Amino acid sequence: MPEQIPVQGSAQGPGQVCVAVVGATGVVGQEMLRILAERHFPVGELRLFASPRSQGRVISWDGGDGPRECTVEVLREGCFRGVDIVLMEVESPLSREWAPVAVREGAVVIDNSSAWRMDSAVPLVVSEVNPHALQTHQGIIANPNCTTMVLMPVLKPLDTAATIARVVVSSYQAVSGSGKAGIDALAVEIDKYGNDLHALARSGVTGVEPAQTVYPAAIAFNVIPACDDFADDGSCETKEERKLVAESRKILERPDLHVAATCVRVPVIAAHSMSVNVEFRDKMPAAKAREILAAAPGVILAGNGPTGFSTPLHVAGTDSTHVGRLRDDETRPNTIDCFIVGDNLRKGAALNCVEIAELLLKNAALRLC
Amino acid sequence: MPEQIPVQGSAQGPGQVCVAVVGATGVVGQEMLRILAERHFPVGELRLFASPRSQGRVISWDGGDGPRECTVEVLREGCFRGVDIVLMEVESPLSREWAPVAVREGAVVIDNSSAWRMDSAVPLVVSEVNPHALQTHQGIIANPNCTTMVLMPVLKPLDTAATIARVVVSSYQAVSGSGKAGIDALAVEIDKYGNDLHALARSGVTGVEPAQTVYPAAIAFNVIPACDDFADDGSCETKEERKLVAESRKILERPDLHVAATCVRVPVIAAHSMSVNVEFRDKMPAAKAREILAAAPGVILAGNGPTGFSTPLHVAGTDSTHVGRLRDDETRPNTIDCFIVGDNLRKGAALNCVEIAELLLKNAALRLC
Repeated sequence: MPEQIPVQGSAQGPGQVCVAVVGATGVVGQEMLRILAERHFPVGELRLFASPRSQGRVISWDGGDGPRECTVEVLREGCFRGVDIVLMEVESPLSREWAPVAVREGAVVIDNSSAWRMDSAVPLVVSEVNPHALQTHQGIIANPNCTTMVLMPVLKPLDTAATIARVVVSSYQAVSGSGKAGIDALAVEIDKYGNDLHALARSGVTGVEPAQTVYPAAIAFNVIPACDDFADDGSCETKEERKLVAESRKILERPDLHVAATCVRVPVIAAHSMSVNVEFRDKMPAAKAREILAAAPGVILAGNGPTGFSTPLHVAGTDSTHVGRLRDDETRPNTIDCFIVGDNLRKGAALNCVEIAELLLKNAALRLC
Repeated sequence: MPEQIPVQGSAQGPGQVCVAVVGATGVVGQEMLRILAERHFPVGELRLFASPRSQGRVISWDGGDGPRECTVEVLREGCFRGVDIVLMEVESPLSREWAPVAVREGAVVIDNSSAWRMDSAVPLVVSEVNPHALQTHQGIIANPNCTTMVLMPVLKPLDTAATIARVVVSSYQAVSGSGKAGIDALAVEIDKYGNDLHALARSGVTGVEPAQTVYPAAIAFNVIPACDDFADDGSCETKEERKLVAESRKILERPDLHVAATCVRVPVIAAHSMSVNVEFRDKMPAAKAREILAAAPGVILAGNGPTGFSTPLHVAGTDSTHVGRLRDDETRPNTIDCFIVGDNLRKGAALNCVEIAELLLKNAALRLC
């Protein structure tokens, strides 16, 4: 860790650090708390932050040494004093405002918004893929978008072996990618329209109205070929597609990488899927890709052969990226097709944040204090 | 119509024909009956066939001249005597057995199974795309797979203008593509698991069991990257993907066309969607593709520009293929991306069968009697 980041003399037990979770009551924040406990992260003091709506709410957390009650606080100047690591899960404008405050007050921030990801001074890290990027951090470390994240552990070892020329990806993204609001929208619509599916089959749009404003159409029994808003510059891409392209290039350190992305929301609760066509500069038969991925960290090959596959319901709640339907694309040399599934809340968000924190603790050069 | 097909002296009203619907109680069969009525098809006698389970069931149908009661019959030798047009919606083995019987008994069969589609003696017809193929029919005419069907009205005019080199397609296919069984599986699972989506978000596969055996995993809150079985020859493709490739080549009369397909089932009730990347031999900017498709029969451009899109709930119950998200793919010359949605039960199955029947009646050279 660079010297300009002040070292806290936080009063933790030996080997323990003070951890703050900002956005602790949200879907990803809750997942962060679960993962900190599951992985026995050496949490000394635990500080929870959320919006004023949740202020004073008491959340019970058990890191293995018995339950403790944590009272939810709101963000304010000075609130990060004594905190070693901040896991920040808030909207970008809030992160832009508060991440620098946390750094000034002595913490390292692992941020899951899009605020800092493309900042050249901020490492954008997937724990298995580019942990070396942490070396240059200046207090803020960015966690990639959940879609990018699921893809990276698969693309990285293949890129190393045969240099990827172009990726064509179509996604199947879960509603939890939009947080509680996404799950709520699906739940309300399912509740309202799920009783007579045969009638719905015929009534089309006249039968189903979006229950919430979170999506531009109903998501129950539907797919929506637009995740996030469209880019502001008159482009035809959504911000989600932009993120997938730009973040992949940064993480793989391949500014010349071609990525054609279409991001689609589907009525799945957790785990993002992607149908991916990957074209290489060098030879990469599917059989070789399978060998490489069988040995890749954070990757599970689904089934015993090219017809094996995992689905979101298989993968939700687990840590690895699953690769299935891995096969040669006979329509183009050095090209493979595959179907990739990963939990957008775990590896796609909370888990990778905690893994980055673990790397910070493990690597003496990156130590916090 | 070739001379070897006997002409029936069916006792219909002037300009009317005797129509048989085989598989009349199924999802597509019911849609055929609706469409025959909606389009005022000149139905003289109407004969309905289904499995012995439905024998004797009475179905009411109103073609515009008052309701009539039709009693469901079972297939038997001689049952097609007097029938002019058979709309056949049954499994392939049954079609292989009975379509030739119907032709021997004097009918023209428009078949929606995969039994005859790749038979070189059988035209495979999309009404707006290759009606000329009907000229060579010998009694059986094949209706394409619902996925292929939705794609063809878009690809044909683009192929004519700039010659398609390669298509990479990922599908989002509705459960009604598996008939009643598909809708039932989704309905039962929604009923069982739809009450607590937040819990499901965390429980993954341990929480959801497939309700029926129609799919290899639960389809509620899931996507399954395998439609139909895998091909028998040890290939890594599903039969659905094979159909999309082979049928597209036959319909577009482009045996050299490259199609890389990944077919995925989603918890949508009606309307198949496809994320499609199309590479051309000649120049085809998205702006030009938009102009061409705005004038293409059977195609609707979604929205006013490249960010417009339709969803399955918008399209279900309607006749045209909708094209949205139409944009240049900057990662490859002469390449566009788009998102295509069409009702798999209407244009994808029943409507095109009826349109073929209309073409037979309209064109004197193809007349039945």
